[in-house]
Amino acid sequence: MELINQLVTELQNLPGLGQRSARRIALYLLAKQPAQLVTIAELLKHAHDSITNCAICGNLGEQSPCAICQDSKRAKNMIAIVENVSDLWAIERSHCYHGCYHVLGGVLSAIEGVGPEQLRLNDLQKRVQSLIKEQHKIELILATNLTVEGQTTAHYISKLFSDMNDNSEGGSISITHLAHGLPAGGELDYLDDSTIITAIRARS
Amino acid sequence: MELINQLVTELQNLPGLGQRSARRIALYLLAKQPAQLVTIAELLKHAHDSITNCAICGNLGEQSPCAICQDSKRAKNMIAIVENVSDLWAIERSHCYHGCYHVLGGVLSAIEGVGPEQLRLNDLQKRVQSLIKEQHKIELILATNLTVEGQTTAHYISKLFSDMNDNSEGGSISITHLAHGLPAGGELDYLDDSTIITAIRARS
Repeated sequence: MELINQLVTELQNLPGLGQRSARRIALYLLAKQPAQLVTIAELLKHAHDSITNCAICGNLGEQSPCAICQDSKRAKNMIAIVENVSDLWAIERSHCYHGCYHVLGGVLSAIEGVGPEQLRLNDLQKRVQSLIKEQHKIELILATNLTVEGQTTAHYISKLFSDMNDNSEGGSISITHLAHGLPAGGELDYLDDSTIITAIRARS
Repeated sequence: MELINQLVTELQNLPGLGQRSARRIALYLLAKQPAQLVTIAELLKHAHDSITNCAICGNLGEQSPCAICQDSKRAKNMIAIVENVSDLWAIERSHCYHGCYHVLGGVLSAIEGVGPEQLRLNDLQKRVQSLIKEQHKIELILATNLTVEGQTTAHYISKLFSDMNDNSEGGSISITHLAHGLPAGGELDYLDDSTIITAIRARS
């Protein structure tokens, strides 16, 4: 039982899995699909060896620069700034954005002790500085989450680049953010007050 | 992205995980805990190589016979018959049973085409036959689930061994089943009718 318990404990540390679901997965793999056990083991090992962060945007992938940064069809002068890779994936799934990204790797948070230097903001500044020499107009899309930390981070970045804008010769940086309002399928009765207030104020 | 998608697809096939939770686990391992990725990969590989079914009871373990079958403190003449290894684990967690087990590996099911020959019933018959020569009194505890299939299976096994009982010389096999009634913490108002009917009929 020692090895099985160890496996269950290890699975239990994964996000979203409790003791019961970890046991269920361990049993499924051991009793019903031992072949899948080896497939997953090899895939995890292989992923560890070959997946890396993109040096430009911070996305995960098998190459650096990643497939998005290498894609010549994507607008190099549009950069969506997201908190994490999962947010980048969420935007990619919508299939409606054709620019590039910059993954911050978190948000500013006084409670968790995350300051600007812990985020990939220096990289972003350098990236924008070198980009502005090639492309005259750059759009930075603030796509952090609509949480207190996300919005604080967005505000900080917005300030940072409007200062840079004043000092840039020739080029210009425009800063936009994702629209706020009712989500698709949202029923007024079930939405929180602040969403409704935002939606009323930003009506068009 | 190819390798990441492959990993997500493979994780998604595990019981209880959907696309979103599989993605969340993949990202957690890749971005936050790459070391854990290797630990889990090695543990899965190791588990595949060294975990086997006990030749006596069908439990999973690193040895065969398993630790339970080898334990001299356990009553060899008490055998709890369970559907799956997860049911064996559930009884073990209660710390109140000190006999042995027999894992059937499923239940009789006409819909899924599972007949007596697909379950470990032959092994059970041989086990009981050789056991009855050493121990004169054997107790078989029917611990299948309280579902239609579980109870059909229990009824089939009960019939099988009462026939064997009539033919056994000297020894005797007693067949018991787990008590049915209100679960601990059960509130009458929230319980289904058949549980209440069972509890009333079996009142004591």
